[in-house]
Amino acid sequence: MTTTALFTDKYELTMLAAALRDGTAHRRTAFEVFARRLPDGRRYGVVAGTERFVEALQRFTFDEETLATLDFLDPATREYLADYRFSGDIDGYPEGSLYFPGSPVLSVCGTFAECVILETLALSVFNHDSAIASAAARMVSAAQGRQLIEMGSRRAHEEAAVAAARAAYLTGFAGTSNLEAQRRYGVPALGTSAHAFTLLHTTADGPDELAAFRAQVDALGVGTTLLVDTYDITAGVANAVAAAGPELGAVRIDSGDLGVLVRQVRDQLDGLGATGTRIVVSSDLDEYAIAELRGYPVDSYGVGTSVVTGSGAPTAGMVYKLVEVDGIPVAKRSSHKESHGGSKRTLRLAKPTGTIVEEVVHPADSPPPVPDGLVGQSVAVAIVRAGDVVADFDLAAARRRVADGLTSLPWDGLKLSRGEPAIPTRMVSVAP
Amino acid sequence: MTTTALFTDKYELTMLAAALRDGTAHRRTAFEVFARRLPDGRRYGVVAGTERFVEALQRFTFDEETLATLDFLDPATREYLADYRFSGDIDGYPEGSLYFPGSPVLSVCGTFAECVILETLALSVFNHDSAIASAAARMVSAAQGRQLIEMGSRRAHEEAAVAAARAAYLTGFAGTSNLEAQRRYGVPALGTSAHAFTLLHTTADGPDELAAFRAQVDALGVGTTLLVDTYDITAGVANAVAAAGPELGAVRIDSGDLGVLVRQVRDQLDGLGATGTRIVVSSDLDEYAIAELRGYPVDSYGVGTSVVTGSGAPTAGMVYKLVEVDGIPVAKRSSHKESHGGSKRTLRLAKPTGTIVEEVVHPADSPPPVPDGLVGQSVAVAIVRAGDVVADFDLAAARRRVADGLTSLPWDGLKLSRGEPAIPTRMVSVAP
Repeated sequence: MTTTALFTDKYELTMLAAALRDGTAHRRTAFEVFARRLPDGRRYGVVAGTERFVEALQRFTFDEETLATLDFLDPATREYLADYRFSGDIDGYPEGSLYFPGSPVLSVCGTFAECVILETLALSVFNHDSAIASAAARMVSAAQGRQLIEMGSRRAHEEAAVAAARAAYLTGFAGTSNLEAQRRYGVPALGTSAHAFTLLHTTADGPDELAAFRAQVDALGVGTTLLVDTYDITAGVANAVAAAGPELGAVRIDSGDLGVLVRQVRDQLDGLGATGTRIVVSSDLDEYAIAELRGYPVDSYGVGTSVVTGSGAPTAGMVYKLVEVDGIPVAKRSSHKESHGGSKRTLRLAKPTGTIVEEVVHPADSPPPVPDGLVGQSVAVAIVRAGDVVADFDLAAARRRVADGLTSLPWDGLKLSRGEPAIPTRMVSVAP
Repeated sequence: MTTTALFTDKYELTMLAAALRDGTAHRRTAFEVFARRLPDGRRYGVVAGTERFVEALQRFTFDEETLATLDFLDPATREYLADYRFSGDIDGYPEGSLYFPGSPVLSVCGTFAECVILETLALSVFNHDSAIASAAARMVSAAQGRQLIEMGSRRAHEEAAVAAARAAYLTGFAGTSNLEAQRRYGVPALGTSAHAFTLLHTTADGPDELAAFRAQVDALGVGTTLLVDTYDITAGVANAVAAAGPELGAVRIDSGDLGVLVRQVRDQLDGLGATGTRIVVSSDLDEYAIAELRGYPVDSYGVGTSVVTGSGAPTAGMVYKLVEVDGIPVAKRSSHKESHGGSKRTLRLAKPTGTIVEEVVHPADSPPPVPDGLVGQSVAVAIVRAGDVVADFDLAAARRRVADGLTSLPWDGLKLSRGEPAIPTRMVSVAP
């Protein structure tokens, strides 16, 4: 499917039909994407999905085949959709930016008709990608500079896995196991072998780990990573060095008490002269397990399930809300689902040292003054103007933005334990 | 992208390269998909993804453009992949079947080369779809026959959302908000309007809910569902009946203390003569909230986040393991990652009443005898033979299978609370 138009909830099109019929469809509106809160106990979120959303927006068109599936719509609505092309403006946080509760991550302005039907697509992309990036950034922070490899494709929907690999890379992971993420986004693909390869080298005489390792080294060179825990790890390490010599690239351990095993394996490798051989660990790692292993000689972490499922928070919980109609702020009046009317932008306040102190969300056309002694940075950038993409997207720049963002947090913002958002969000109302 | 070949972890192709080089690639193997355990405290799982996997398998081919992205492979491996087409056999649990820890949900037999490279694709599909189906079935069970509508697309990756809508429908949901799921799988699409539509009808004089409702009824008829909680719910219900008359199809409540509100709204509707108007509730519902509302006059539940994220278990945690090489059972020896060698099938034992009592997993070629007084059913069916699909796929049949499966559980298997699997799994070894 080349069009993205059907990644849409039916009610968006029935609302469109009703609004076209009574003429309200053409009112000027502003919609905003934001999260009312961070997942339980998280201290910051990381915006991801902007580039994917803009790419999908350009394919959000209704061709004849697509319209043929929408037989519940009246002719006027179908006619509107046949000509649909988003012609409004979009502003938003650059990918890799930190966000907090209430941060207007994306602002979409245009007629009600052209904006309302983007709800599901925008939220699907931002809720998924930002959930992954927000979890991944905690892992990057916990790894303190050690290498992280995303290898969770198998635990996620096959297309979500590709987006997850991109989101993890965006936050600072070194690469992914996923080949489509390499093809589509240039994320470095990494990986060598699994237990199946060792088990394959079983004959009527029994297992033959050494034959498996020799075959792998023969095909992939001594720089490869040998998986040493299929049978006995000590024998595995001995076989690995026997097959590759002391120039062996790395060994991987995928089970057991990793801390203890890593020390044993390091000693064994060093004793065999393989002092440059790196140790890769995997096996249901999450940010807490990564942090626990700080004191052990781990060189690289393979992270699977936890990163692709957002480590307990598989969706960022962002919403897409109508905040302004013909210049009038609007908001639902509902307990626990508070929203603030009016189109908004963000001024992020920091100390001169760079440590951020407050997220000030203000009416789009009236930024508040920056208090003395603080530095204010406007967070949002122009992304689309009159339907044309005006932002540059650059995964390398997004990676630097995440790194800078983590550096800018107050010290307790990097704690893995549950707590309040790292900085407060202050909503500044429209001046009376 | 029409090929699915790159939904693959790099290490599968590097293992393939090494196995082609040492000749082991052509050994006859059996791989199995199974879950070592159910998500924490679940009592059963529901298999979903079989049809999607088989469809993706038919597009698992390496065209020139795809091969061009695999420059880390040697020429022999690329040549093998250029001609790749799965030519082995696949057996598995029909979609909608219940599964338990150790159930061999899918068995893939063929050469190592042709089987090993399917790992990520198979697991991505089964882990995602079965996670959703397993959560959705608990909601279906909790709803006790009341209508469930899946409306979580916005909280999931845009493609995962389509598969999630299919998986929820497969377990007994009435339909989905997702239009692509309707187009692709024929899942009924449902839905009417959101708060944005009511808010849109704001003018300089203030909000005008009645105008919004009149516009919706005018466009969609009195059978529509009006969302009554944008401002005051009592006023909303009054406006709804004023706009549509007592023949109004339904009202939706999306916030607040749903139990209390539903009773109030029912009384109000009945007092206004709208005795046939149904009440739809939504707002972060999960299986527990659905069960809590049993005593209240709810007609329909809109379920979002919880169903598309597997209600706390976003992946089914299934693995794809090599279990047999040239007729020799093989297994990794690792604590907590136990697996059982040899190709396996399942006999599910039930009482004559239909209540299941045990999952007997046995060597593929030697089913054990059925104990006196019990009925034995072989669970797996042939899916692919020599590369050709031989199974029929039918979403309606899968829905009946889930319903039958839930009926077959022992009474405590339907409890929502945490507990042991509803029936034990017994692994029968190869006869000595």
